Amino acid sequence: MESELNILVVHGPNLNLLGMREVGIYGHYSLDDINKKIEKFGKINRLRIDIFHSNIEGEIVNFVHKNRDASGMVINPAAFTHTSIAIRDAIKGVDIATVEVHLSNIHCREEFRKNSYIAPVCIGQISGFGYYSYILGISALLAYLKKE
Amino acid sequence: MESELNILVVHGPNLNLLGMREVGIYGHYSLDDINKKIEKFGKINRLRIDIFHSNIEGEIVNFVHKNRDASGMVINPAAFTHTSIAIRDAIKGVDIATVEVHLSNIHCREEFRKNSYIAPVCIGQISGFGYYSYILGISALLAYLKKE
Amino acid sequence: MESELNILVVHGPNLNLLGMREVGIYGHYSLDDINKKIEKFGKINRLRIDIFHSNIEGEIVNFVHKNRDASGMVINPAAFTHTSIAIRDAIKGVDIATVEVHLSNIHCREEFRKNSYIAPVCIGQISGFGYYSYILGISALLAYLKKE
Amino acid sequence: MESELNILVVHGPNLNLLGMREVGIYGHYSLDDINKKIEKFGKINRLRIDIFHSNIEGEIVNFVHKNRDASGMVINPAAFTHTSIAIRDAIKGVDIATVEVHLSNIHCREEFRKNSYIAPVCIGQISGFGYYSYILGISALLAYLKKE
Amino acid sequence: MESELNILVVHGPNLNLLGMREVGIYGHYSLDDINKKIEKFGKINRLRIDIFHSNIEGEIVNFVHKNRDASGMVINPAAFTHTSIAIRDAIKGVDIATVEVHLSNIHCREEFRKNSYIAPVCIGQISGFGYYSYILGISALLAYLKKE
Amino acid sequence: MESELNILVVHGPNLNLLGMREVGIYGHYSLDDINKKIEKFGKINRLRIDIFHSNIEGEIVNFVHKNRDASGMVINPAAFTHTSIAIRDAIKGVDIATVEVHLSNIHCREEFRKNSYIAPVCIGQISGFGYYSYILGISALLAYLKKE
Amino acid sequence: MESELNILVVHGPNLNLLGMREVGIYGHYSLDDINKKIEKFGKINRLRIDIFHSNIEGEIVNFVHKNRDASGMVINPAAFTHTSIAIRDAIKGVDIATVEVHLSNIHCREEFRKNSYIAPVCIGQISGFGYYSYILGISALLAYLKKE
Amino acid sequence: MESELNILVVHGPNLNLLGMREVGIYGHYSLDDINKKIEKFGKINRLRIDIFHSNIEGEIVNFVHKNRDASGMVINPAAFTHTSIAIRDAIKGVDIATVEVHLSNIHCREEFRKNSYIAPVCIGQISGFGYYSYILGISALLAYLKKE
Amino acid sequence: MESELNILVVHGPNLNLLGMREVGIYGHYSLDDINKKIEKFGKINRLRIDIFHSNIEGEIVNFVHKNRDASGMVINPAAFTHTSIAIRDAIKGVDIATVEVHLSNIHCREEFRKNSYIAPVCIGQISGFGYYSYILGISALLAYLKKE
Amino acid sequence: MESELNILVVHGPNLNLLGMREVGIYGHYSLDDINKKIEKFGKINRLRIDIFHSNIEGEIVNFVHKNRDASGMVINPAAFTHTSIAIRDAIKGVDIATVEVHLSNIHCREEFRKNSYIAPVCIGQISGFGYYSYILGISALLAYLKKE
Amino acid sequence: MESELNILVVHGPNLNLLGMREVGIYGHYSLDDINKKIEKFGKINRLRIDIFHSNIEGEIVNFVHKNRDASGMVINPAAFTHTSIAIRDAIKGVDIATVEVHLSNIHCREEFRKNSYIAPVCIGQISGFGYYSYILGISALLAYLKKE
Amino acid sequence: MESELNILVVHGPNLNLLGMREVGIYGHYSLDDINKKIEKFGKINRLRIDIFHSNIEGEIVNFVHKNRDASGMVINPAAFTHTSIAIRDAIKGVDIATVEVHLSNIHCREEFRKNSYIAPVCIGQISGFGYYSYILGISALLAYLKKE
Repeated sequence: MESELNILVVHGPNLNLLGMREVGIYGHYSLDDINKKIEKFGKINRLRIDIFHSNIEGEIVNFVHKNRDASGMVINPAAFTHTSIAIRDAIKGVDIATVEVHLSNIHCREEFRKNSYIAPVCIGQISGFGYYSYILGISALLAYLKKE
Repeated sequence: MESELNILVVHGPNLNLLGMREVGIYGHYSLDDINKKIEKFGKINRLRIDIFHSNIEGEIVNFVHKNRDASGMVINPAAFTHTSIAIRDAIKGVDIATVEVHLSNIHCREEFRKNSYIAPVCIGQISGFGYYSYILGISALLAYLKKE
Repeated sequence: MESELNILVVHGPNLNLLGMREVGIYGHYSLDDINKKIEKFGKINRLRIDIFHSNIEGEIVNFVHKNRDASGMVINPAAFTHTSIAIRDAIKGVDIATVEVHLSNIHCREEFRKNSYIAPVCIGQISGFGYYSYILGISALLAYLKKE
Repeated sequence: MESELNILVVHGPNLNLLGMREVGIYGHYSLDDINKKIEKFGKINRLRIDIFHSNIEGEIVNFVHKNRDASGMVINPAAFTHTSIAIRDAIKGVDIATVEVHLSNIHCREEFRKNSYIAPVCIGQISGFGYYSYILGISALLAYLKKE
Repeated sequence: MESELNILVVHGPNLNLLGMREVGIYGHYSLDDINKKIEKFGKINRLRIDIFHSNIEGEIVNFVHKNRDASGMVINPAAFTHTSIAIRDAIKGVDIATVEVHLSNIHCREEFRKNSYIAPVCIGQISGFGYYSYILGISALLAYLKKE
Repeated sequence: MESELNILVVHGPNLNLLGMREVGIYGHYSLDDINKKIEKFGKINRLRIDIFHSNIEGEIVNFVHKNRDASGMVINPAAFTHTSIAIRDAIKGVDIATVEVHLSNIHCREEFRKNSYIAPVCIGQISGFGYYSYILGISALLAYLKKE
Repeated sequence: MESELNILVVHGPNLNLLGMREVGIYGHYSLDDINKKIEKFGKINRLRIDIFHSNIEGEIVNFVHKNRDASGMVINPAAFTHTSIAIRDAIKGVDIATVEVHLSNIHCREEFRKNSYIAPVCIGQISGFGYYSYILGISALLAYLKKE
Repeated sequence: MESELNILVVHGPNLNLLGMREVGIYGHYSLDDINKKIEKFGKINRLRIDIFHSNIEGEIVNFVHKNRDASGMVINPAAFTHTSIAIRDAIKGVDIATVEVHLSNIHCREEFRKNSYIAPVCIGQISGFGYYSYILGISALLAYLKKE
Repeated sequence: MESELNILVVHGPNLNLLGMREVGIYGHYSLDDINKKIEKFGKINRLRIDIFHSNIEGEIVNFVHKNRDASGMVINPAAFTHTSIAIRDAIKGVDIATVEVHLSNIHCREEFRKNSYIAPVCIGQISGFGYYSYILGISALLAYLKKE
Repeated sequence: MESELNILVVHGPNLNLLGMREVGIYGHYSLDDINKKIEKFGKINRLRIDIFHSNIEGEIVNFVHKNRDASGMVINPAAFTHTSIAIRDAIKGVDIATVEVHLSNIHCREEFRKNSYIAPVCIGQISGFGYYSYILGISALLAYLKKE
Repeated sequence: MESELNILVVHGPNLNLLGMREVGIYGHYSLDDINKKIEKFGKINRLRIDIFHSNIEGEIVNFVHKNRDASGMVINPAAFTHTSIAIRDAIKGVDIATVEVHLSNIHCREEFRKNSYIAPVCIGQISGFGYYSYILGISALLAYLKKE
Repeated sequence: MESELNILVVHGPNLNLLGMREVGIYGHYSLDDINKKIEKFGKINRLRIDIFHSNIEGEIVNFVHKNRDASGMVINPAAFTHTSIAIRDAIKGVDIATVEVHLSNIHCREEFRKNSYIAPVCIGQISGFGYYSYILGISALLAYLKKE
């Protein structure tokens, strides 16, 4: 029964700027707007959603450790996607089914954004659909968790 | 109104083997099973779904050209993801909003599967969720098309 | 005497889209328009021109094999320029003097378009002059064939 | 008992040119000559030999799929050796013991001919012995199949 | 009128060690000494100077976000120059004209210090002049801001 | 006399997970178990041992700065081994003899774990002996400090 | 009307040796022979042709600057193709439509001859047709200039 | 006393085009305008300023040799930054304190502009501030020379 | 007449361990078992077989030199395949037709096993068929020698 | 009971020069001095120590083979660390628990000394502690062997 | 008879600084001193020696062209060794037997000094012996010319 | 006085084949012929010459160690030039002034022959002059030793 599922949603660095600047790339929604959409989607699917944001790599590691009993996680590691082995090791170290999401299509940006340290320890990766990437990520997680 | 939307679903090489072999990696569903799920999802969302499979790169190019009035496309280029500039050029050349999908998580396989020639000309990429990647891909497409 | 010369003109993948889309890059001429210009130029120079287009790599290989008695060939391999060793081997395997042509200047596009598998087995390469690249290619071929 | 063994022999692109040109490199035998030698060798060893040639990558994929009940396969992927992940996936996807063969020694040609996408999914690779590479390949296959 | 200009000065990791060790490379000034020189220069030019130091990447990101109404920023990212995409994204995400400065000449040190993730999102980079790099950086910023 | 020696022991990110998960790789000892062993070894050798753990790169930098009067340091930088120039600069900036240790053999894991930013500024590196790497590290440090 | 067109023809280093040595590669024509052919072609097309040769990179830069009112330029940068960013910047800095030409097919020579610093700032590149590359280059230029 | 200081200012290739073209990138000032600003700044600081421009690499080498008694040099090597080991060796061979300057931010242009052969033999590098980079460069030089 | 043929068989380093360990990879045959099979095969084909094994690179070089009148050689260079230019030069220096063989398929092992210094100076390479690679190698050699 | 443990100690090329030259880098101890320390340490721990030195790669391979019943091995492969796949294969081929040791810190020397062919087939690596690296290596081995 | 031999000696950029600076690296001899030694050596061997120095790449090309009837050339291309394809083409274009010499050992300096564009078109290269490299170069040339 | 000088001459692998094969590349002289020329040259210069040849890397290392009181060494490491760090370390470990020589011009052969592990620890390198490279090497050594 889904109502028991506890899903973590983690926002990486600079996502708190959303909606304030570069709306051409990232859209008009603020992080609050996106969180509300995620929570609404969670409520409809009877999920417990825990949302976390930090600009500090190690705090994301801490959050993952503290919540290692969660059923699943959707993480947008943002800049840390390409630089953080620590978050990779945290995800691999705990046993949470994880989906990596990105607002923009990271495959058509700078060369260094093509490599993800995080994706190989996740179930999968979703990139390019704005805030909707989070919704798709949670859906994917649900499908995955039901299958298990 | 969604009923007018016409979505192409393209399966690349070897996907016709699905369910016959390597079920550990790709799952027990055959391509037919997956197509039925896609069509069912399409019916629910009142979409016209055109499904195409070929093991021949150029036939996929031809299919894309012939259907260039479609509203959107979900493509699993399989092996062609990493080798076909022709399919990339076809997608860029027509004006169909496209989502790239993969059954397996291409980010934790051989090194050469990390590069996608197709992703940079798509809205986004979804990878790792078995047949459900297609469903997520169509959902993403619908969200994108409504936004436009 | 030129009237005996038989020149093959081969168009690679997606060139059939010409004039329909991306006119900013490739110009307003359709492939038919270009073919007419080529044929007109051929007539003036008393050449037998055989034009072929395919989006399928192997069909281009087949065409080259079947016409291996031709005097010369102008080929725009398009996307296959960068991926097809099979076409390279076909040109090297038959004994047709060949000129590689491109509509756009491939040297100022994506990095992966800089390498040509085809050029090293050709007399030369002409890139960047729109449909006129074909005309220049045939001229170059004529100069070359007369010199032999 | 060997008489039940069914061996596929697959010739990749441009091998139909054999004996017509570049005899210095590839020898004087035509593809027909080679096929006769293979069939003769098959008859002596009481094998059912199915020979297939195509210049189209996807047709080779199709052939492999359709014959996935064969006991073994000897494939000379020619140019596709270095470019076709689709054929690699096809061989891995079916369960046919496969030997990769080459007429010429690919290790002393162009740099790009050193990498084989096919070899890692085969039992082994044989390169450099002209048409005799096929005979060695079938012998190797027989030894392997008997050992199983 | 300059008196309205608000300039951020950000010191990256380990700069608080200045003057204590490795004086041969970095000079005898402590970070306090440098800050006093910066403030004095700011006073002369009637600037409001906000100085910040942290050894934690994410706190620098936070500082940049919180002060995104500043007129300009001089940042010495130190080790983060070569590893922090998060700070790059922060600078690009806010709209502060930024100058990257370095005490030592990063172009004649270890190979990995040659790449800067930060420089491409700045107006420019100044490297090699000890504490004076900061003074030059603020001067450059003033010239830039007046020009706008 | 050793009783005056003050040894820092620094644990990098995710080491607090030890003993909870992936025991196949990292063994059954928790970080507490390991710390007790280290302290016991310290007591026997009459050392003052200061143990520190953080998942935040900058806090490790801070710890190194604050304790720059220590006689020596044993650091397991974990994921930061491969990404942190800031910790490298901190170690080089203070004057503490340092030994880098790893629980697992980093030379037979992912390619990106082969490079260490930290090792070049240490006396040496010890990798592969589980918790015992710390004991070896302290022994090595003692031998080194006595030699000075 | 073409009679107003002023075309620069620039020969890079060592082209003054033409016809004296290595006739197997570059043909029997001397630079004078080629210049006469170019001038004859210019006369037929009612062009004003200014021919310049230098073995000194900076003199070619100077020539380009001094003639920046020309309608077009055909340049064979020879060795400078692969080493001169200065000539690239000169061409980009003035506003002359430029075609890069080569006598030999640079795509089948040493690896370092494959990269051209010049081509990306030109309309296109023509390579492999001996002196006739110049004639093709001027033709291409005329077609381009008329189209504008 | 500064009045004795003799500062060389060297402009590399194509800088004589300044103000004529590409004003969007390089600004509206001509090289003469910039020289006047430099001389004015020199007069205020009681410096003897010797300005030199050449599009020929070797003439810059000659200039550096001939003036090897100068107190300092500000050089904008332009295109030679990335290609001239000769100028590097000249600067290293004489004993003039040198600052490398650039009008544009070379760190956000083509990949090949990121490497500087010159910077490692200079005191430092200043890049991105238009003509003001020269003024900053001379200031930096003065601060450096006074410190000696 | 084959009875006059003298074939060298050279086993490289560690092959003397065969059958003792890692039988999963290399099979149950000891080197003695393999040598007996080779000799038996030699007897049937009326060949004089000289078998040599050494773990010392230079002794293999010496053996090749001393037997430079042999008709042919089958060599399994094992680890030396990837590191020994000396053996390469020895084979090239004498005039013995040589076939390189490997027990395992070197194309699906560590990356560094893909490069062979030896293959380019051999007739061909056979890899992946256990002890039978030697038998195939001798067969290939016979076919080659008869053809000469 | 440790008295049954038989430990091999292998010294690679040039270690016999120890104490004679480059004492600044390698210390004043001769190889004999080091061997005495090792033997003394062995006696204390009731180990049977077999020490071997050779400058010939293959003799080290031979030694490893002949002593493949040993309990453990400490090897300082010196220069062979970076070039010998044969020693790697030997260690992997026998079943001796092995520790790689180095006198100097190989991570702060020439780039080519960073790669070790040996480390991935060892339990771990210890580098940088002079002769004491051997003592640490034996200690590590004992801890490992007791744990088994 | 040697008296007829005409040897060119070419000094590349910055060699005119010799003896003035960096005597630690290049020795105390000025270029004049070296030239005198060369001329003396020439006189003893009854050679006509033509010495040329330039800091301008193209002037060296010109000198080589103008003297293309010389018997041999000794060239120290200095910085141009690593950057000048034009000088390479000049040497290859004329038919003068050439020896490349260097004062310092270019193999133990910066990485970029390891590649020589010039050496592959010379008889050989001599590097590391101060002015004596020229004497050795001429000796080598004489031995070579006599052998012809 | 030269009569006291003791010069080692070391020949690396395969040089004992000289004069027997590949005379086109290496000349008609056998190793004996060359040794006689070297000895004659030594006698004239009143040197004690010790000549050594081995195909075994470690024996060369041994020879260098045993003769570490020699005045100088001329070594042709042949294939070991590109693979032997052990010989490099031996030369660096003893204190013999060493010159690296090569018969052929290694700069115009296979890419892998361009790198020398040996050259950076020598005084210099001489390559391309057949047996005369040894004579030049000894001359260079004498000049060097006299200068000391």
